[in-house]
Amino acid sequence: MAATNFVDWVCKRSTPLSPVVPVPSDIDVAQSVDALPVSSISRAVGIPDDHLDLYGKYKAKVHLSELDRLASVEQGSYVVVTGITPTPLGEGKSTTSVGLAQAVGAHLNKPCFVCLRQPSQGPTFGIKGGAAGGGYSQVIPMEEFNLHLTGDIHAITAANNLLAAAIDARMLHEATSDDNALWNRLCPTAPNDPGDGSTREFAPVMLKRLEKLGINKTKPMELTQEEITRFVRLNINPDTITWNRVVDTNDRFLRGITVGLGNLEKRPRNTQYDITVASEIMAILALTDSLADMKERFGRMVIGFSHAGEPINANDLGITGALLVLMKDAIMPTLMQTLEGTPVFVHAGPFANIAHGNSSIIADKIALKLVGPAGMVITEAGFGADIGFEKFCDIKCRTSGLVPQCAVLVATVRALKMHGGGPTVVAGTPLPGAYKTENLELLKKGISNLARHVENSKKFGVAVMVAVNQYSTDSKAELDMVCEMSKQAGADGAFVCNHWALGGAGAIDLAKAVSTACAEKRKCTSGFRYLYPLELSIKEKIIAIATQLYHAAGVEFSPKAEEKIAAYTKNGFDKLPICMAKTHLSFSHDAKMKGAPEGFILPIRDVRASVGAGFIYPLVGEMSTMPGLPTRPCFFDVDMNLTTGKVVGLF
Amino acid sequence: MAATNFVDWVCKRSTPLSPVVPVPSDIDVAQSVDALPVSSISRAVGIPDDHLDLYGKYKAKVHLSELDRLASVEQGSYVVVTGITPTPLGEGKSTTSVGLAQAVGAHLNKPCFVCLRQPSQGPTFGIKGGAAGGGYSQVIPMEEFNLHLTGDIHAITAANNLLAAAIDARMLHEATSDDNALWNRLCPTAPNDPGDGSTREFAPVMLKRLEKLGINKTKPMELTQEEITRFVRLNINPDTITWNRVVDTNDRFLRGITVGLGNLEKRPRNTQYDITVASEIMAILALTDSLADMKERFGRMVIGFSHAGEPINANDLGITGALLVLMKDAIMPTLMQTLEGTPVFVHAGPFANIAHGNSSIIADKIALKLVGPAGMVITEAGFGADIGFEKFCDIKCRTSGLVPQCAVLVATVRALKMHGGGPTVVAGTPLPGAYKTENLELLKKGISNLARHVENSKKFGVAVMVAVNQYSTDSKAELDMVCEMSKQAGADGAFVCNHWALGGAGAIDLAKAVSTACAEKRKCTSGFRYLYPLELSIKEKIIAIATQLYHAAGVEFSPKAEEKIAAYTKNGFDKLPICMAKTHLSFSHDAKMKGAPEGFILPIRDVRASVGAGFIYPLVGEMSTMPGLPTRPCFFDVDMNLTTGKVVGLF
Repeated sequence: MAATNFVDWVCKRSTPLSPVVPVPSDIDVAQSVDALPVSSISRAVGIPDDHLDLYGKYKAKVHLSELDRLASVEQGSYVVVTGITPTPLGEGKSTTSVGLAQAVGAHLNKPCFVCLRQPSQGPTFGIKGGAAGGGYSQVIPMEEFNLHLTGDIHAITAANNLLAAAIDARMLHEATSDDNALWNRLCPTAPNDPGDGSTREFAPVMLKRLEKLGINKTKPMELTQEEITRFVRLNINPDTITWNRVVDTNDRFLRGITVGLGNLEKRPRNTQYDITVASEIMAILALTDSLADMKERFGRMVIGFSHAGEPINANDLGITGALLVLMKDAIMPTLMQTLEGTPVFVHAGPFANIAHGNSSIIADKIALKLVGPAGMVITEAGFGADIGFEKFCDIKCRTSGLVPQCAVLVATVRALKMHGGGPTVVAGTPLPGAYKTENLELLKKGISNLARHVENSKKFGVAVMVAVNQYSTDSKAELDMVCEMSKQAGADGAFVCNHWALGGAGAIDLAKAVSTACAEKRKCTSGFRYLYPLELSIKEKIIAIATQLYHAAGVEFSPKAEEKIAAYTKNGFDKLPICMAKTHLSFSHDAKMKGAPEGFILPIRDVRASVGAGFIYPLVGEMSTMPGLPTRPCFFDVDMNLTTGKVVGLF
Repeated sequence: MAATNFVDWVCKRSTPLSPVVPVPSDIDVAQSVDALPVSSISRAVGIPDDHLDLYGKYKAKVHLSELDRLASVEQGSYVVVTGITPTPLGEGKSTTSVGLAQAVGAHLNKPCFVCLRQPSQGPTFGIKGGAAGGGYSQVIPMEEFNLHLTGDIHAITAANNLLAAAIDARMLHEATSDDNALWNRLCPTAPNDPGDGSTREFAPVMLKRLEKLGINKTKPMELTQEEITRFVRLNINPDTITWNRVVDTNDRFLRGITVGLGNLEKRPRNTQYDITVASEIMAILALTDSLADMKERFGRMVIGFSHAGEPINANDLGITGALLVLMKDAIMPTLMQTLEGTPVFVHAGPFANIAHGNSSIIADKIALKLVGPAGMVITEAGFGADIGFEKFCDIKCRTSGLVPQCAVLVATVRALKMHGGGPTVVAGTPLPGAYKTENLELLKKGISNLARHVENSKKFGVAVMVAVNQYSTDSKAELDMVCEMSKQAGADGAFVCNHWALGGAGAIDLAKAVSTACAEKRKCTSGFRYLYPLELSIKEKIIAIATQLYHAAGVEFSPKAEEKIAAYTKNGFDKLPICMAKTHLSFSHDAKMKGAPEGFILPIRDVRASVGAGFIYPLVGEMSTMPGLPTRPCFFDVDMNLTTGKVVGLF
């Protein structure tokens, strides 16, 4: 299969967008365009019908076999969209990713894919609303993007919670049974057993546990009584369990719970729920590239430690294959479309603090092959560049081996004014007046934040383009200042973008510049580099990120963090990359330190490990892994028009 | 659209099954046949492509617009499969439903649909395994049937838990805010408000609450301070909350939990999780027939009572539209196929004790239209005929207005011997020897159970056919005795069936007899009747079921039950049908009373209401709504063959 597969790629709508002024609500814009059948998108990009599973008319899962089919095709250019340190409102990274894709696909007429994260359903009904982009730069149908999609997050919930149930059930069975009873249940004899137990058999997953225990035997009969005891007893120390249950709902009353209070259990244990996207299974989905690799990672997931201090993983619980089967469809990315008919992959959406916050490697890999060497894949990294982009490079690209050519840094005049000392911005309340009138002084001061993100991003060896996401209240002088100072800070280009109001037509200059920069970068293959080598110690890696990117003067490790680092190092987990769990609202640990702070000491409160996903995550302050519902959640407005069958009130 | 739509219905495979002896494992049989593309099934039965959403190649959701398209078509015959009082192993109702459908469709060549419940994923990974039928009478692909399917149960989990989160969050906000703060957040002013609150607006769902409060106003400005207080404060009494969280996992440690222990909440409340299929939302999905009706029912769902004793429902919480949107795809039944190409609808699977245990009305209605007057729809009722069939008639058919012609009572020699005094049968342990050798005496004694089910079923005015689900260890004399005594008890026919080993070919005699009986019954429209009229009091209805069907000598109501009955009557819920929450292992409340017990007093421990679903459910003894995991759950065997991509170890 040659790259000519893509010469005729036409993946845009036959009729251009007709943007309306003022821009209607997101769902009204989304519903103003009839989505194309997804099968016409898949055929336009060359996916054979039998490598695709439709989920209704506008969503389809693409088989991993596409990677084999396209093995010999040269990849397209790889562009990551990141941002400055945002306000709590977000500065439009998703909207810019979609708008840029619409510009490249529907206006420059180049093969183009945009790869996005699947949003959690929790915030959709809570305070934030949907996440399909906005205005005339959206993924459609936006209600399907925001709700259920193709069930991947539900599959993660199911897999995560099956493992959680298995942990507590296993502890109960071990506590209430002697070794022989456990052995007879785990490896039962067949009804025709001659009485010597020769009909006992190990399930294949049990061999993994035996291997870990150093018991090199495959027949149950061969085990000594001492080996049987070691095999049947996981001896999980309940105080060490880090595997929480999850739900894809903003349910703050599950932040702290006691389980096991039933009359038949009576074994209380304090634990908590996280929102599903915080599950390690989500992080694995985003980092894997095959069923075999996903299974390996699932098996390695550490759920806690035994009383003897040994890590206990999913293989020990015998559940790895079941987790894989629950996730076998979720591993396929979901094909959708933008408002201008550009193909979209939606796949995975790990937390951007306790996990790496990037959409899946699989989606990017398939898309890079589908667009071919003349095309472009735009992918988005969560939070600001200090977090999402650093993790994109040091975790996602290191895992995938993919090399980006260009980073697009999204900035807004609003956020830069905030960094310059503007009033506090709070989600759900009206924006203070200071953000709606020209204030060059405030802006100039705040550009320090953008400048540092530019400098930081350049350290990774990519081209850096600044996209100023324009608001109607921004003045020309303000927009010019941002562009000018971006270039002074080292950006390869800076462009005012108006894709929210105009669709792809509002981001054509950016698209051209990104396209040219990618072509330049592709000529020299050695540009991209990681921030740190994996061989450094856990502490050295943390210090590298803190000092080189955050500009901390130093790092302070709590005694707990020191203890955990020692334990992880002892267990051989110290060669993993680092995934900083830090606020996205400041370069520092303190959300109130705006702009480009210097000289602070970064405190590491605790250190945790996602051994299956493959990273160590230091906790810089408290990280909430479960949002709550406000007094008047978004759900009050969500409904269906029973006459038209359309969803209303989503935004 | 005339009935001729169906004259040319050919919905069977071009090559017949080739059963193997001995019958391989369920998943091996299921994978031995290449499933037809579901689009070839949908086209054969006349569903237009644009009334269908594919979910992969072998599953599709059928739009409710089929009901409009086929409005003028005469319905087919309606057959319900029920059973005797089973052993804990189950006696093969699903297998018989599928086998009978294969016989009618692929051997009698008549238009035929089988409508089944979607199984919970919990037991699939726990102790029970899958629920797609068995042997050569299965729904395929069985792994898709048993896992995720098209996401309906996941949607129920999401909807149920959003409501649960909203309840606790609302109580927290009410406890920590004064009336004005609540008012300002529930009905905020717009940024351009002149200061008099004239820009406040009610969300449409809020009007439902106002209506319930008897406040006949539509503008927030018009409310008095006293009305504002009543509007903003639900004043939920936490001790009365009956809305539990749910999960589709066997997680016994969630049977008793305390929530709200987080540092920011510190409002502990004892509650529990149920398995998802126990959610009232599942019961509603099974009983509704349109989006508008489903919305009405969601709005009526009572989650608890205020401190003043007023029922609080989903409308009060402003969440009805969001629940509807979450369930908008789940309301469509999922089209699949049997091993012999017969069309299958899989839709809804409510608990058979605390709910009515029958698959959806929507699936049955669409199927009855699709098969047309010459065709047959086979649907299955959960548990034995004392529970599932009674609820099929008194709740499901009363709600739908549909009239069944024939009931098929599934019996096994094994279960009848148990009723005759055979040894205890325990799931997960080998069957005692008594069940594997001829024992006519034990069998004869146990047929009392079958005889009573026959007599009971006849009371509803349907034809009653006994299907003896044959096992290899049954003797000819045993099988003959069951058939002979069934007819003596009043059955319209009794047939030995061997569809497990042979597919439809093993149930041809049954299929012919059911077909003939349906044709006879269709000639007289007045045969079918309910057991009791809705106008009776709650107690009278309970007594009617207990004495007429169970043969109890009387009913004893606990003080709690008396109190609840009084409260429900006062709130106008007393004209709802009754859904007995009773063990399925005996006609009585005591699972140990086998055969056809008489003279016992049926104890009613408590009475609850599913006001949205529309039934009162008396609790006869303890009902577990959350199964557990054994020491060696099914999940140990579940895996994927990474070479073939096939699921292994599901059964």
